[in-house]
Amino acid sequence: MNPLDNLRIVLVNTTHPGNIGATARAMKNMGLRDLYLVAPLHYPADDATWRAASAGDVLERATVVQTLDEAIADCALVVGSSARERTIPWPLLDARAACEQAYGEASRHKVALVFGREDRGLTNEELQKCQLHIHIPSSPEYSSLNVAMAVQVVAYELRMAHLATDRNVDPMADWDLQYAGGEDIERFFIHLEQALSEMGFLKANAPKQTIARLRRLFQRTRLDTMEVSILRGILTSAQYWVRKAKGVGRE
Amino acid sequence: MNPLDNLRIVLVNTTHPGNIGATARAMKNMGLRDLYLVAPLHYPADDATWRAASAGDVLERATVVQTLDEAIADCALVVGSSARERTIPWPLLDARAACEQAYGEASRHKVALVFGREDRGLTNEELQKCQLHIHIPSSPEYSSLNVAMAVQVVAYELRMAHLATDRNVDPMADWDLQYAGGEDIERFFIHLEQALSEMGFLKANAPKQTIARLRRLFQRTRLDTMEVSILRGILTSAQYWVRKAKGVGRE
Repeated sequence: MNPLDNLRIVLVNTTHPGNIGATARAMKNMGLRDLYLVAPLHYPADDATWRAASAGDVLERATVVQTLDEAIADCALVVGSSARERTIPWPLLDARAACEQAYGEASRHKVALVFGREDRGLTNEELQKCQLHIHIPSSPEYSSLNVAMAVQVVAYELRMAHLATDRNVDPMADWDLQYAGGEDIERFFIHLEQALSEMGFLKANAPKQTIARLRRLFQRTRLDTMEVSILRGILTSAQYWVRKAKGVGRE
Repeated sequence: MNPLDNLRIVLVNTTHPGNIGATARAMKNMGLRDLYLVAPLHYPADDATWRAASAGDVLERATVVQTLDEAIADCALVVGSSARERTIPWPLLDARAACEQAYGEASRHKVALVFGREDRGLTNEELQKCQLHIHIPSSPEYSSLNVAMAVQVVAYELRMAHLATDRNVDPMADWDLQYAGGEDIERFFIHLEQALSEMGFLKANAPKQTIARLRRLFQRTRLDTMEVSILRGILTSAQYWVRKAKGVGRE
């Protein structure tokens, strides 16, 4: 059982159908499928279909109910999105920590993530049906996210929890070629120094400093094998022109 | 200086003005302010204003330009959003790791995060203006996020980086020189292509592939200002010898 299939998004009293469509797309983009709509104001609607783009199947499978209770009846964990400070503090986690917990539990049972109205979120009564509140960190100058955007952030964090072991943190992990070995790199540097010296470039430009800077540049780059051969090809070409200009035959 | 103020969102050729408004809101929600619009199709527009909600100030401050080059001219790190499968792999990080790097560098210089067209993202040419590509993990069944949603995820990760206590994620934090800006980098590439073409090197070596590989090499290196001037000095010297060999006076 894929835990993502046990994670349900619940939208309560959504006013703009465009937000329902955008939610469906955000869900499918992140591998979620289970959408519940509690008493949406206008639905179905063209705007929902249009914003869903290629996630029309998520919309078609969506379950429309009249109360929040129906939407969470079979869920063992209900997480409610909370914008503001409540009079009674409730267990509260930021989006990342809440999604890690939700994803962890979703291997065992259904989990609902509940999002409120565009203008005033979830009521206190609705929030009290939740075991956990979730807060998306935001700027104090303007803290209210669009509801579909909030779903996007949460769905993204659920997917990150899903991928936890498989993240892309090495920028050159999928490189198409092997890195050049130390010997090839050293030969390139010897070639570089020789070509620059034939060109008269080193004499005019603080040779030791310049070579050190060029070494630092190409060492930190991690040259691959083809790059070394392109660079050496360029050097050979430059040497050809220098020798030709000087009237020396190329051996 | 708040690093969030050094982080720029760039939207290229956006078709639907609603996405521009939604981007402005996502930015303000996460504490970002600097928005560049490259040749938007319809802008200004009511739909942008409506979707921006209380982020109208971000829209009003937005800079509209005609080319990507103008939008990144003063940025020392340019991060392009990529759908991941490219013929030539480029340095690529997931949203979290890329935003940690971008935020880390934003304490020192301007950083651009670039987002492409709704239907086909950024072109290869645009992606080759970037030092780093960013990929938002998504479901293989439907991997294409709405552009404003992608901005929301990235802006959220930038805020998470902002909220994290200082961690050591930038290998070049103590560099002795400033990175070269986008404009200087582009001038170097133009110079490089011209010199290689005068040398007859491109004709003999699959010009487009070779140029793409050289761009990738020098983009991922993050050239500093002195390195750019050394490399251009070498090119000028090579051009001198070519022209001399060809018997053409150096203008």
